[in-house]
Amino acid sequence: MLHFEDTLTFQNKPIDLVTIGELLIDMIPEQYGDQFEATSFRKYFGGSPSNIAMNVKQLGLQPVVASAVGNDGLGKFLIHHLQQANMDTSHVQQVNQSTSIVVVSKSTSSPVPIFYRDADYHLNYTNQLEKTLSQTKMIHFSCWPISMEPSRQTIEKVLSKAKEEEVLICFDPNYHPMIWEKGEYAIPYIKSIISQVDIIKPSEDDAERLFGKDTPKNQLAKFLELGAKFVILTLGKDGAIASNGEETITFSTLADKVVDTTGAGDAFWSGLYTGLVQGQTVKEAIQLGFAVSAYKLRYTGAVVSLPTVAKLKEMYHV
Amino acid sequence: MLHFEDTLTFQNKPIDLVTIGELLIDMIPEQYGDQFEATSFRKYFGGSPSNIAMNVKQLGLQPVVASAVGNDGLGKFLIHHLQQANMDTSHVQQVNQSTSIVVVSKSTSSPVPIFYRDADYHLNYTNQLEKTLSQTKMIHFSCWPISMEPSRQTIEKVLSKAKEEEVLICFDPNYHPMIWEKGEYAIPYIKSIISQVDIIKPSEDDAERLFGKDTPKNQLAKFLELGAKFVILTLGKDGAIASNGEETITFSTLADKVVDTTGAGDAFWSGLYTGLVQGQTVKEAIQLGFAVSAYKLRYTGAVVSLPTVAKLKEMYHV
Repeated sequence: MLHFEDTLTFQNKPIDLVTIGELLIDMIPEQYGDQFEATSFRKYFGGSPSNIAMNVKQLGLQPVVASAVGNDGLGKFLIHHLQQANMDTSHVQQVNQSTSIVVVSKSTSSPVPIFYRDADYHLNYTNQLEKTLSQTKMIHFSCWPISMEPSRQTIEKVLSKAKEEEVLICFDPNYHPMIWEKGEYAIPYIKSIISQVDIIKPSEDDAERLFGKDTPKNQLAKFLELGAKFVILTLGKDGAIASNGEETITFSTLADKVVDTTGAGDAFWSGLYTGLVQGQTVKEAIQLGFAVSAYKLRYTGAVVSLPTVAKLKEMYHV
Repeated sequence: MLHFEDTLTFQNKPIDLVTIGELLIDMIPEQYGDQFEATSFRKYFGGSPSNIAMNVKQLGLQPVVASAVGNDGLGKFLIHHLQQANMDTSHVQQVNQSTSIVVVSKSTSSPVPIFYRDADYHLNYTNQLEKTLSQTKMIHFSCWPISMEPSRQTIEKVLSKAKEEEVLICFDPNYHPMIWEKGEYAIPYIKSIISQVDIIKPSEDDAERLFGKDTPKNQLAKFLELGAKFVILTLGKDGAIASNGEETITFSTLADKVVDTTGAGDAFWSGLYTGLVQGQTVKEAIQLGFAVSAYKLRYTGAVVSLPTVAKLKEMYHV
């Protein structure tokens, strides 16, 4: 069991974190307006696991991005973008499908994403990936790769190998009905994954989509009942509640200025991972997660330029 | 058999042309550059059958667009765009899939389209569509709806109904391997369609993708051997060769100024349809096709503002 005052001990492995899942293009309108009025769109590097990998690289970790992109101009752009950030792209598979896109409307009411998934869920389990899993301390994945075949099978094999190698398994249950394979009932499958992971970090929205509306305490209890070992339920501006089933701790955010919330959850994960690898206690690592998130909130964009861990600790007194 | 000097006689039906197939968004970069350098994209109304419908409406026909778009902002934009042009949108189905997109790179070498197909091939055969088919003179479809299920079945039902109702059936064999369902062998299926249509208008590229490289005369012969009743093989700046198997006529283009070739083929179809419905001979209708195409080539965009048929005839002496 993970205790809040514990420091995790990892085997001496060269890779800190393998993020597995969506690497894609976000197409975001340049103007606000009703959904169908926007005429110009900008393409952005996107996909939550790859954002996390980009962040932890800046914070001093050694990450690997395991994702699939199309053998096309957009896929080349994504790989190029990773290379510009000195990221390891040896596990970015180029497949015979179109690079996935999310088109986001910038509506004055509620912006609705339109999903164009193709290459991202064609991620294969390879010998190379298996070898890499035996050399990493932690893995991260989200609902995207488990929502479709063949990447669902890839994740199942990843989980099995990661357990064998005593890798810390972390899961972002960012469930959205629009990404799931049509005609399939997603929730029972996601619930079956929950007991297989070491850390799960749902947002209140994620919890609501899985269990319906309820109080944060009750939502937390539902994850624990399903066999979750360590849950961090994030509550936006209200911080988070975390629990290992024995002890439950409430955290406040450290946000001082909110310019753009995009990528704030990814920034939290990034601080958490960095803290865990760098020998901080679980509690301190969560606080470092809030520090990275608070810093990110000051700037526009999913991935922003981050200061050193030492500087972040000093800025946010963690 | 269609003879070049014949005037087609249509039953007295209220609709001139039903175009069946892709209605989608073209995402086109605002700057030139290597594939992955373009950052801004503009969204455009797109899909060849809908472009034809928009053109023939301007030329005085009564068209109906039968297509499927997503129940999302991009689908709403497409419907809105049709409505702005006073088009009948009663047969644009809004389905529970994402509106199809084609992202085009503006490379200095060869621009490559990336296809994101979803809603477009979810076109259903409805009672409403069946009723409309009994009230139209002509139908037009392309390779897009026959490349995937369920729209392939829709087209098969459309063809059967159209034959029963003595509707003129016209087919654009714009085959591209990237649009076809993965793992399926497209060419035999397309060949099986060829004998079922009244007019087919391949480009040289279409012919090459279907039969391999050959001379225009040989390509024309191959369509006829497969049972095509009337073939118009377009040859870009070299005009076209058309044949009913008995008589073969060569046509020159009427292009006087080439600013943008996008939509030139759709413009040709539009003039052809207008000529046929308005009681011109087949030969004259083909010439009107070249006139509309020549006019379109003077301007940028897939669908441009067109003058009246009388004015076009005067301009191009057809």
